[in-house]
Amino acid sequence: MTPSEADIDLWFDFASTYSYPAVMRIEAAAADHGLSLRLQPVVIGPIFADLGWDTSPFNLQPAKGRYMWRDLARICASEDLAFERPVPFPQNSARAARIALFARDGGWDLAFTRALFHAEFAEGADISNPRVLDGAIQLAEQDPASVFTAIDAPEEKPKLRAQVETARDLGIFGVPTFMVGGEMFWGYDRMQTALDWAVVRKNGDTR
Amino acid sequence: MTPSEADIDLWFDFASTYSYPAVMRIEAAAADHGLSLRLQPVVIGPIFADLGWDTSPFNLQPAKGRYMWRDLARICASEDLAFERPVPFPQNSARAARIALFARDGGWDLAFTRALFHAEFAEGADISNPRVLDGAIQLAEQDPASVFTAIDAPEEKPKLRAQVETARDLGIFGVPTFMVGGEMFWGYDRMQTALDWAVVRKNGDTR
Repeated sequence: MTPSEADIDLWFDFASTYSYPAVMRIEAAAADHGLSLRLQPVVIGPIFADLGWDTSPFNLQPAKGRYMWRDLARICASEDLAFERPVPFPQNSARAARIALFARDGGWDLAFTRALFHAEFAEGADISNPRVLDGAIQLAEQDPASVFTAIDAPEEKPKLRAQVETARDLGIFGVPTFMVGGEMFWGYDRMQTALDWAVVRKNGDTR
Repeated sequence: MTPSEADIDLWFDFASTYSYPAVMRIEAAAADHGLSLRLQPVVIGPIFADLGWDTSPFNLQPAKGRYMWRDLARICASEDLAFERPVPFPQNSARAARIALFARDGGWDLAFTRALFHAEFAEGADISNPRVLDGAIQLAEQDPASVFTAIDAPEEKPKLRAQVETARDLGIFGVPTFMVGGEMFWGYDRMQTALDWAVVRKNGDTR
């Protein structure tokens, strides 16, 4: 399935703060709007590296980082989402992304993704810790040992790199990003706009 | 009047794209919520320069810039605001900001600010052009020659620099930014949240 085959694609990074409310709220929101959803896990680090950034802009710009943590806490309070600031930040999300890509084939990507985001941002867990990944895999009702073996298979290795290339080709510069056909909506605060756009598009309105 | 004396402060730069819908919509929105409003013109360039940036991040990051222009066009369409992309971008906004600061004392800052943003983003005019500034001053029912003389007076010169220092002290890292007491809301997409926060704060709810 290519990105264009879902009504709405959510591009996210497991290390991304605003991806947390997006991942936790998109499933019900898409269903409410009668829209099909596809998760697009990616690591945004290589795209930031294109700009010469070696870490999150929230670390590179301390004032922006302070604001982001406060803003995220407000959003979580408003959405009734538990929130605990993960340490360190950002976390190494590559292995999590590779599991989520593998999970798409089996249809358990959303369950795994939600469980891992909850561990990271509601419990402050480190998502590069194998035991934390193990727990999220189990919450998705899968066998961790089989999954770890599978994602280390040669055919799995190139998938995340290809995902980064696709994101770069789409012009994605940050996450979460919602794609509706070729239309891009960046940031959790654009989720409703993206949903509304997808409904209009699906109903055949051309604008 | 210090920033804390208004229910909501709108910090903006005349060169800032998302400041355009904020400036055009905040007056009616604040009135609808029974809130007093104070405009806080600033130039964000010196704060960007602290990060080593010599122009807008929308120019430094081409993918982000392409997205922003599309996003702004969508917002303007949604808000029934005319939109024409100004060239060059960003424009030199220092003189416009100094006029707006002077205008606060006379109470014509909002009229001038709205007129100049309209010239820039609805008509594509260059706001560093004295004739464009002249037109916005006239739309605010003031005499341009007197205004130009006044803003070049010695007591006016330090005001914009002080405004930048205040913004830096507040932790402002981009515009538009809405300040409600000590609470910061960055971006046009946070305007409604800022208004709601200001209403709760004004009504004495402490959170």
